[in-house]
Amino acid sequence: MLEVLTLEALRAAADRIRPYVLRTPVLAQPFAHGTIYAKAESLQPIGAFKIRGAFSLMTTLPPGTAGVIAHSSGNHAQAVARAGKVLGLPAVVVMPRDAPPLKRERTEADGAEVIEVGNDSQERIDRAKALEIERNLVPVPPYDHPLIAAGQGTAAVELIEDAPPLDRFYCPVSGGGLLAGCATAFKALSPQTQVIGVEPADANDTFLSFQRGERVTIPPPTTMADGLRVRTPGALTWPVVKARVDRIVTVTEDDLLAAMAYGLQHLRVVLEPSGAAALAACLTEGQGRCGVLLSGGNVEAKRLAEALDRA
Amino acid sequence: MLEVLTLEALRAAADRIRPYVLRTPVLAQPFAHGTIYAKAESLQPIGAFKIRGAFSLMTTLPPGTAGVIAHSSGNHAQAVARAGKVLGLPAVVVMPRDAPPLKRERTEADGAEVIEVGNDSQERIDRAKALEIERNLVPVPPYDHPLIAAGQGTAAVELIEDAPPLDRFYCPVSGGGLLAGCATAFKALSPQTQVIGVEPADANDTFLSFQRGERVTIPPPTTMADGLRVRTPGALTWPVVKARVDRIVTVTEDDLLAAMAYGLQHLRVVLEPSGAAALAACLTEGQGRCGVLLSGGNVEAKRLAEALDRA
Repeated sequence: MLEVLTLEALRAAADRIRPYVLRTPVLAQPFAHGTIYAKAESLQPIGAFKIRGAFSLMTTLPPGTAGVIAHSSGNHAQAVARAGKVLGLPAVVVMPRDAPPLKRERTEADGAEVIEVGNDSQERIDRAKALEIERNLVPVPPYDHPLIAAGQGTAAVELIEDAPPLDRFYCPVSGGGLLAGCATAFKALSPQTQVIGVEPADANDTFLSFQRGERVTIPPPTTMADGLRVRTPGALTWPVVKARVDRIVTVTEDDLLAAMAYGLQHLRVVLEPSGAAALAACLTEGQGRCGVLLSGGNVEAKRLAEALDRA
Repeated sequence: MLEVLTLEALRAAADRIRPYVLRTPVLAQPFAHGTIYAKAESLQPIGAFKIRGAFSLMTTLPPGTAGVIAHSSGNHAQAVARAGKVLGLPAVVVMPRDAPPLKRERTEADGAEVIEVGNDSQERIDRAKALEIERNLVPVPPYDHPLIAAGQGTAAVELIEDAPPLDRFYCPVSGGGLLAGCATAFKALSPQTQVIGVEPADANDTFLSFQRGERVTIPPPTTMADGLRVRTPGALTWPVVKARVDRIVTVTEDDLLAAMAYGLQHLRVVLEPSGAAALAACLTEGQGRCGVLLSGGNVEAKRLAEALDRA
């Protein structure tokens, strides 16, 4: 992916998705050691940056495409469902039984066909593959595709345009599509900014891979940040992350709740645990002008109340 | 104010305040009877649209101005404090004892001198007047000034630019600065949009004034929407509201809490009760494409938890 994930690819993705996504605001907020510039992707129509990647890929499909298929526990499912609805493409989504009910409901509300499988991520992948072949559907992978990563990276292009020069940029890492896309934007447009990936402590596959210099697989994570529960970096995103990211840090479950509370009180936005990860790292170790990617805001009322209890 | 509050005045205000305020996003959300286009002024740096009016007036003050004075129970105080800090103007704010602690803390955090008085609004006005004369300060009124109303109206200019043509526009009413400014924008740029002012049921001074055709004074309101507790429309804003607003509706305390919960769940933003009033009216009676002004997001954790309990 290193050769094709370029600034030009990000610019082309930005042109394709402009009619469909929100130019989210950058919320400036002083904190103990500098100023946070938070890119609120949680305010996108489906409540997450995932809409960028889905539209980036799906706007390139030729007329007559039978439909698309995705597997996801949450925000990617909603993104594919919404893009399918807007672009007139039937969407099938394979979701695990333990997916947050709110995310499943919203995926169905946008007209996607939801197929429920067990919680093992391999089962999800196998089932999606079978359906792809059986029904002649185009797969929309959650992260491991250059058009997806280019779409996600458009968020960083906007942040760089709308914020003053940044000392650091904090970005959550799951499979690495968002981080690879955003790191590409920073290395091209703002090379002085330190690019930092953020993982929950028990979903530290990219952290460990960075230490070893190669992809590591970890046991299934249990973090409350359901969007960041992957076991190994993407095969295609990993070389980009390795080449263009400066370091990876981890945050605790407690840090996540504290960051959600900070979001409610000081930024006045609702964040899901995954969506608060970058903010959590910034609040813990940030210095100077810190860009922070708030990746999503789809959270059950009960979890939000837990965060609010700490505010 | 009718003659001077023109589209040109709004455009001039927009030019003056552009470096200091956020172009807040318009959040599109389908609801039972159409689509909500919510202008999220709650995401402004101080968490409220009031920053627009404060900068609109304070950017016109000549060099050498000794300082400014305002009286406010909340968001206007924070706006004047922030504008004073940014523009290098000492700010004095007279606040009632029952002002929300969060709003007072944030006003002080921006370096304003806070002077506490009793809860009667006349006491506040008298004390501010005395300090104005004594210290040669420039008063920054919360609503009853053409430069303030023009600043607030810039929010509607942006909404009209960023949303599709709107059938209706819902806007909270306190003293009427925001409503007068926004109604001016709509009548000039989108005359087909019905402009609707929204008040809590027990702060219905503009509703009653509209019925009678003249300014009415009501007993002190007790609504949880602390930003909307005024007893009579502004002397200068009233002729504009009367001429350019189509109708006034009221919402219950229950409607306010339900709208706060809707904001958290569906728009993913934190709203204070006053900030949710326009949304409450839209959810109750909206039809078609409805612009909604989310005026503020400064709310105590306890009140937010109360709203969340209903989500």
